[in-house]
Amino acid sequence: AAIHGEGDDLVAVEIANDPNTTPWTDPTFTGTRWPLADVRLLTPFLPPKIVCIGRNYAEHATELGNEVPEAPIMFLKPNTAVIGPGAEIKLPPDSSRVDFEAELAVVIGVGGRDIPAERAMASVLGYTIANDVTARDQQKADGQWTRAKGHDTFCPLGPWIETNFDPSDVAIRTELDGEVKQDSRTSLLLHDVPALIEYISAVMTLRPLDVILTGTPAGVGPMEPGQTVSITIEGLGTLSNPVVQRV
Amino acid sequence: AAIHGEGDDLVAVEIANDPNTTPWTDPTFTGTRWPLADVRLLTPFLPPKIVCIGRNYAEHATELGNEVPEAPIMFLKPNTAVIGPGAEIKLPPDSSRVDFEAELAVVIGVGGRDIPAERAMASVLGYTIANDVTARDQQKADGQWTRAKGHDTFCPLGPWIETNFDPSDVAIRTELDGEVKQDSRTSLLLHDVPALIEYISAVMTLRPLDVILTGTPAGVGPMEPGQTVSITIEGLGTLSNPVVQRV
Repeated sequence: AAIHGEGDDLVAVEIANDPNTTPWTDPTFTGTRWPLADVRLLTPFLPPKIVCIGRNYAEHATELGNEVPEAPIMFLKPNTAVIGPGAEIKLPPDSSRVDFEAELAVVIGVGGRDIPAERAMASVLGYTIANDVTARDQQKADGQWTRAKGHDTFCPLGPWIETNFDPSDVAIRTELDGEVKQDSRTSLLLHDVPALIEYISAVMTLRPLDVILTGTPAGVGPMEPGQTVSITIEGLGTLSNPVVQRV
Repeated sequence: AAIHGEGDDLVAVEIANDPNTTPWTDPTFTGTRWPLADVRLLTPFLPPKIVCIGRNYAEHATELGNEVPEAPIMFLKPNTAVIGPGAEIKLPPDSSRVDFEAELAVVIGVGGRDIPAERAMASVLGYTIANDVTARDQQKADGQWTRAKGHDTFCPLGPWIETNFDPSDVAIRTELDGEVKQDSRTSLLLHDVPALIEYISAVMTLRPLDVILTGTPAGVGPMEPGQTVSITIEGLGTLSNPVVQRV
């Protein structure tokens, strides 16, 4: 389905099951529509790869006692970590601190390699919200961040892909059980979306539906079983996930 | 195609184009066969994810001045880095030292999560050879290893998947332009294949055709444009790739 409307008037509109429909063509609609509140949204898509950027807001870098890096810090999350809106984040039994990290997620459309910043926006299909869930104790213990950030359910994505969106200066906010924890703006990104696409695509080919997680602002903190974490990015909606203990 | 035979008598046998053929069923053969020398092998498959293990041979850990870690060090390579036998490893212009790293690669069959070591071998489809190509200067500079190990062409895989193979004690050898550089045995793996499958699948779900790179023995070193790097694992064949400069 596609999501149409604005503010409180969002509706899900059914897309016809047409084999010629792709993310790059205008879909055919069946005419069936539901109020968004009556719909359970699934993961909007499964990205082939998830390229993440660390310490891309200065205040977040310093809150964890790190210096602000000159070049972007690149790492990967496995796509087996992806869950959709409303799905449970499962805390692994071998970690004693698992943090939320609100991030603007860039969904690649055309892809390619060696994409210059000036042409980077043409390679973007749209934007969504990601939670770069992190086992903070494992991140510190391992050196490499793959285990700490790679557990199943550690990459909530959604609620949908917004294809008509300017990422340069919007509010990004995290609430944990309704209490505001992160509250920043994407204008504070140290390396903006075009710069990240240029940097990453000089290393590895970007494929359609690959995702770039652009880094988290200050205010990260731990989640406990029974809590709900909600990330809102102005213009992209809200990504909410309950937290449970994995047994 | 499948590869049949032993030693110098290897032949490629054509598999019938039957939509019911999967890696988990016995294929139907057309009867057509070619001597292996007359065949150009492509990448045997595209893994959904490539989970790598660092410092899994004690002598290699210490040759780079590192301690031997207690738990496996896990990291990911993007599957956009995969190339097949004979394809060119392209040295990026922004690195001054790119090393070969010979590794036994485990190809997952059934997959799953929380796979205990005792049952791990049942989840393996087969084995092949990988070269965990690494820009050593970028690895040191970045802290995270993703850029250093994630460049396009930095994951040669092949020459084929061997489904009838005991990985516990075979020779692994790297030659650079015919000169032996790495020469070890898989019996020296600090964490063996069942232990790695248990460790990784406790974090992330393993999917069919995911690959585990089990770490490299001592003797890593740089490659120059014009050279050819060849990795031989006893029972798995030889993976050879020429090295060129990316312009």
